[in-house]
Amino acid sequence: MRADDIASLSRAPLFAGLRPGTLERLSHHALMRRLPAGTELFDQGERPLYLHVLLEGSVELLGRSSEYRETVVELLTPVDAFILAAALTDTPYLMAARVVTASRVVLLRAETLRQQLVADPALSLAMLASLSCHYQGLVRQVKNLKLRSTTQRLGCYLLSLTGRAGKGGSVRLPFDKRRIASQLGMSAETLSRTLAALRPYGVQTFGGQVTLRSPALLAAHCRHDRLIDEVDKDLRVEVKEKECGWLAAAAQGASAKRYR
Amino acid sequence: MRADDIASLSRAPLFAGLRPGTLERLSHHALMRRLPAGTELFDQGERPLYLHVLLEGSVELLGRSSEYRETVVELLTPVDAFILAAALTDTPYLMAARVVTASRVVLLRAETLRQQLVADPALSLAMLASLSCHYQGLVRQVKNLKLRSTTQRLGCYLLSLTGRAGKGGSVRLPFDKRRIASQLGMSAETLSRTLAALRPYGVQTFGGQVTLRSPALLAAHCRHDRLIDEVDKDLRVEVKEKECGWLAAAAQGASAKRYR
Repeated sequence: MRADDIASLSRAPLFAGLRPGTLERLSHHALMRRLPAGTELFDQGERPLYLHVLLEGSVELLGRSSEYRETVVELLTPVDAFILAAALTDTPYLMAARVVTASRVVLLRAETLRQQLVADPALSLAMLASLSCHYQGLVRQVKNLKLRSTTQRLGCYLLSLTGRAGKGGSVRLPFDKRRIASQLGMSAETLSRTLAALRPYGVQTFGGQVTLRSPALLAAHCRHDRLIDEVDKDLRVEVKEKECGWLAAAAQGASAKRYR
Repeated sequence: MRADDIASLSRAPLFAGLRPGTLERLSHHALMRRLPAGTELFDQGERPLYLHVLLEGSVELLGRSSEYRETVVELLTPVDAFILAAALTDTPYLMAARVVTASRVVLLRAETLRQQLVADPALSLAMLASLSCHYQGLVRQVKNLKLRSTTQRLGCYLLSLTGRAGKGGSVRLPFDKRRIASQLGMSAETLSRTLAALRPYGVQTFGGQVTLRSPALLAAHCRHDRLIDEVDKDLRVEVKEKECGWLAAAAQGASAKRYR
């Protein structure tokens, strides 16, 4: 990998605050790929040799059934790492990954990643934060699927696109309708029908453009819920500086008696 | 917390391999609770002061809607920690926790946990493994909900109770039907109806007892899928010993040049 590729990794919040040298060691034997839409990065069931980091573009994580059905489990935007759980525990991918729009992806060797966790606690904290974010995303999705109607799911999704509930405006759908429908656990036909049913609540669509004329009305109708709809992508595992010092000292063998 | 309580924590795979002293520091200001069925440990939206560790019994993690509906997102059995993502990132719980059967639960202070992550890399690895396990559990659940019919979900759930697909036998339902139905994303009525519909495939029920007479037939009918149905609860983040040594040395300031 080239120096400017490493530099673009270092600017990602995911890798902020690492010790000097960690990113260079992670980038050893790493690959940088520019990939067109439709590229399949890996299939479910395969062994994870790499942790993928999405720098530009978008990628979908897909679940597939033996009956050749597939569903979008996660839709990823930069900067994000996938699939951490598999790469860390060296277990088969439970999902396939496919490029949605032309993407730039870094492949970091999973084995090197695991080694560096021990050498640099900041890397562990970053990975814990990223995994927490993905875990919480799935908790939101399960609540969305099990507690809500298709109307509520779609209405709250549209609200999330135009920012926090209460703000309205016009926005372009970030993906095609079939893909959004899959993400929301409905068919493309149901999505179209539901869009029409939301017209009395100020939802207007024209091609891929959606305008929300009465976001407050829509939020009330669809029961907007911040514990489902407001995603925090910038989670961190914060450790208080002051306490960090003596803990590091304790870890290096100094007496820790007085702290017990 | 008493010494024998700490000892029972130390026997949990979750806390295996920690440095001497880490568990004692984690247990400082920790609480041990014996709780009857029905106890609500916390509600969604609350700030996580503790990481809960289930030592005995069972606990359900619930998603709730503003319309007073609730759904089981995870059903936990010992030993398991909950909810790691919230405790690590200090963000509000997305789920409530309620005791299902009389339980013994340890409450570890979330702030102490975060501090110890930096002091002991083995703790970070253990938490990464636990989070990975919960993340993968939710991926399986989302695939189950979005790719399968209620018949397939219930059939494969019953197969998972009697061990790997192909093995049959008789087994007691581990929870009441309403709770299992909620976990599987269906109503209690649908579960009863689906149980009856599975009779031609060798499923016999008597009270809470289920017998599978033709597990292979059932697995074929319900499309048993190891990437959804076979859960590995003992995930680990393994770092090769040999490479660990020099990495630790590098982390302590020794020259790492030759490893680049």
